[in-house]
Amino acid sequence: MGTIISLTTDFGWRDAYLAAIKGTILGINPEVTLVDICHTIEAQNILETAFVLKTACDYFPPDTIHLVVVDPGVGTERRAIILRTPTACFVAPDNGVLSYVIPNHLCRPPLDNTAKQVALEAGFKAVNITNPQFWQTPPSTTFHGRDIFAPVAAHLSLGIPLTEFGEEISSVTLLPLPQPYREADGTLAGQVLYIDSFGNLITSIKSGDLPGSGALIKVVIGNHVIQGLNRTYATGEGLIALIGSSGYLEIALPGGSAGKFTGSIAGSRVKVRW
Amino acid sequence: MGTIISLTTDFGWRDAYLAAIKGTILGINPEVTLVDICHTIEAQNILETAFVLKTACDYFPPDTIHLVVVDPGVGTERRAIILRTPTACFVAPDNGVLSYVIPNHLCRPPLDNTAKQVALEAGFKAVNITNPQFWQTPPSTTFHGRDIFAPVAAHLSLGIPLTEFGEEISSVTLLPLPQPYREADGTLAGQVLYIDSFGNLITSIKSGDLPGSGALIKVVIGNHVIQGLNRTYATGEGLIALIGSSGYLEIALPGGSAGKFTGSIAGSRVKVRW
Amino acid sequence: MGTIISLTTDFGWRDAYLAAIKGTILGINPEVTLVDICHTIEAQNILETAFVLKTACDYFPPDTIHLVVVDPGVGTERRAIILRTPTACFVAPDNGVLSYVIPNHLCRPPLDNTAKQVALEAGFKAVNITNPQFWQTPPSTTFHGRDIFAPVAAHLSLGIPLTEFGEEISSVTLLPLPQPYREADGTLAGQVLYIDSFGNLITSIKSGDLPGSGALIKVVIGNHVIQGLNRTYATGEGLIALIGSSGYLEIALPGGSAGKFTGSIAGSRVKVRW
Repeated sequence: MGTIISLTTDFGWRDAYLAAIKGTILGINPEVTLVDICHTIEAQNILETAFVLKTACDYFPPDTIHLVVVDPGVGTERRAIILRTPTACFVAPDNGVLSYVIPNHLCRPPLDNTAKQVALEAGFKAVNITNPQFWQTPPSTTFHGRDIFAPVAAHLSLGIPLTEFGEEISSVTLLPLPQPYREADGTLAGQVLYIDSFGNLITSIKSGDLPGSGALIKVVIGNHVIQGLNRTYATGEGLIALIGSSGYLEIALPGGSAGKFTGSIAGSRVKVRW
Repeated sequence: MGTIISLTTDFGWRDAYLAAIKGTILGINPEVTLVDICHTIEAQNILETAFVLKTACDYFPPDTIHLVVVDPGVGTERRAIILRTPTACFVAPDNGVLSYVIPNHLCRPPLDNTAKQVALEAGFKAVNITNPQFWQTPPSTTFHGRDIFAPVAAHLSLGIPLTEFGEEISSVTLLPLPQPYREADGTLAGQVLYIDSFGNLITSIKSGDLPGSGALIKVVIGNHVIQGLNRTYATGEGLIALIGSSGYLEIALPGGSAGKFTGSIAGSRVKVRW
Repeated sequence: MGTIISLTTDFGWRDAYLAAIKGTILGINPEVTLVDICHTIEAQNILETAFVLKTACDYFPPDTIHLVVVDPGVGTERRAIILRTPTACFVAPDNGVLSYVIPNHLCRPPLDNTAKQVALEAGFKAVNITNPQFWQTPPSTTFHGRDIFAPVAAHLSLGIPLTEFGEEISSVTLLPLPQPYREADGTLAGQVLYIDSFGNLITSIKSGDLPGSGALIKVVIGNHVIQGLNRTYATGEGLIALIGSSGYLEIALPGGSAGKFTGSIAGSRVKVRW
């Protein structure tokens, strides 16, 4: 069957690990279309994985299978799961990498960022991958990507029902996502979620969190104050703020890197006043 | 339909932007074959894009659709175009990235390197992409690659006629390409077009610009003088000159990087005497 | 025909060389599935190529064609070959890049590491690629990957018999592989074969070289002594040793890079005592 399997890992492009995964999948379903989402996730960074996955997976056709192997706990007791959402299917370690694909309201973040079990809503279904029938046997203890996740995704793409792969579970592990909040004086406080390779700062503040007229806002990052919103990256002097292509408030530096210019990192504070 | 769509961008491999483009295309035409040409173009370097695209696109089968998203002017008034040549189809911003795919004689470069409108010859056809019917609507102002170029390329691959996408135009924007010229004393003066990842300097001088017997030439770069032409990269001591696989005069350093050794950059002067 | 062609090169991702190879293949067989194994092999490092290829190619389906272009001798007298093994087909320069795909017992390494001709065993077949009928003609002298290897692999994928491409040969060039050996006091002496992008040191010592109970071994690298074997990367303090997913003894640093921590390089000595 001509399904799509996307791949998101922290394996980089230098080793042969990724190719071993692709070869394994094609050996089970030669008709599958493989698409790389990202393989340069910072090693074992679960929150970055979750965000990068989300900004890509919404644009894939329904029934795409998204294989995610960012798995610091490989070989330990962490579960391996399949999650079916109303539009796609995910095969991943149950460590929080799917935190952005579950609707936000399921995840009510406290200020601490420890992972927790969150019950699935209607329309979502998950199984704990426990049936070794679909694995490379015996699986290695260090490379479940190749020996468990890849063959499971490939068999899924052949149409094998979810429940063949293990028992159904009613909750999965999610990380609290950084949500913007109002301070006492009305300032909206958010943070940098991700810095892209152009140096654009993508923040946790969404367009819907801002007043209708962006012209009136002041965006503050470090010592820098940006007045109003731009429409594009191409215009403006110095730092600019704009609503990026995924709906998040971004800070950019036309012709340069806002990340380097402001010295920001993922987690840096951003404030908006109006 | 099983068409090929190639992709050339400056998005790098770290973000999910490229995957969003691929998912969008596959959602419209799941049968397409996607091939990456290059995604590590120096950010917004239009001339490098044009050269890299040219050295790959000649080797693709007829009717390949080449999608190019190096687009510093995204969201501004620059046009988005489709260009059909006698052998391929290009979907790109109208900013000069197609400067090498139009026959050279169309572009008579003065010494300045500002872009200009050049009329299309017979056999070439172009349209200004203005019909939003084939876009992701509403398109973002910052990511036309995903919202306009990708769906247009995907619909083109389904066989939709060129003129459905917008009105025909008779000229496109080209950058003057650096052409070698003869100095008063007969010296041929060219420049470095591109330095590849092996450190080979690819120059603007083509094999046809040189005398029949390469043995007699002297190639000068910086303080270095190279005598005669080599046939391969494998032999020779110190810097060597040879005709590379795209027909351009190249300068190489067996076992090392000619780029680092000579301190050259794109644009560095190269001279040939005989 | 829907064969798979895998690609392993030292071309990197920045230039268009790889795309020219892919375009050439798809022009000959548009039905082929292309899979990248690795393109960031250290420039012209034959032994690294051989190892990386081996750790991926075992996981591809039977009859996959593996195209390998790490070719410091391009344009010289080195042969270009096709090697058919019982499970796959390789198209490569005859310079040792296939040293790991021939069964180990064929290669009895002395301590020197010069390449030598090794006779093929039953079940293996090789031809010297000499028939220009299947090449891009005339081939360039500097890019046989695009002009000879790619079209040969593509025609092979169409089912053209091996012997159409040139005369059969009975031996190929192999590099002696670093094999562990016992020192006078019983210590097992091996070396680092490869350092992966997580910084894990993959050694020449295989699980079968070690006593049944890994708990009793001491692994020595530089000034560091590691006691016993771990099962996974996730547990342990400081350096750990474990059997990796390809069956080799590995040294890792949970949360860090064993390569940087120990200052090892490919070739660094590793000893095991028990």
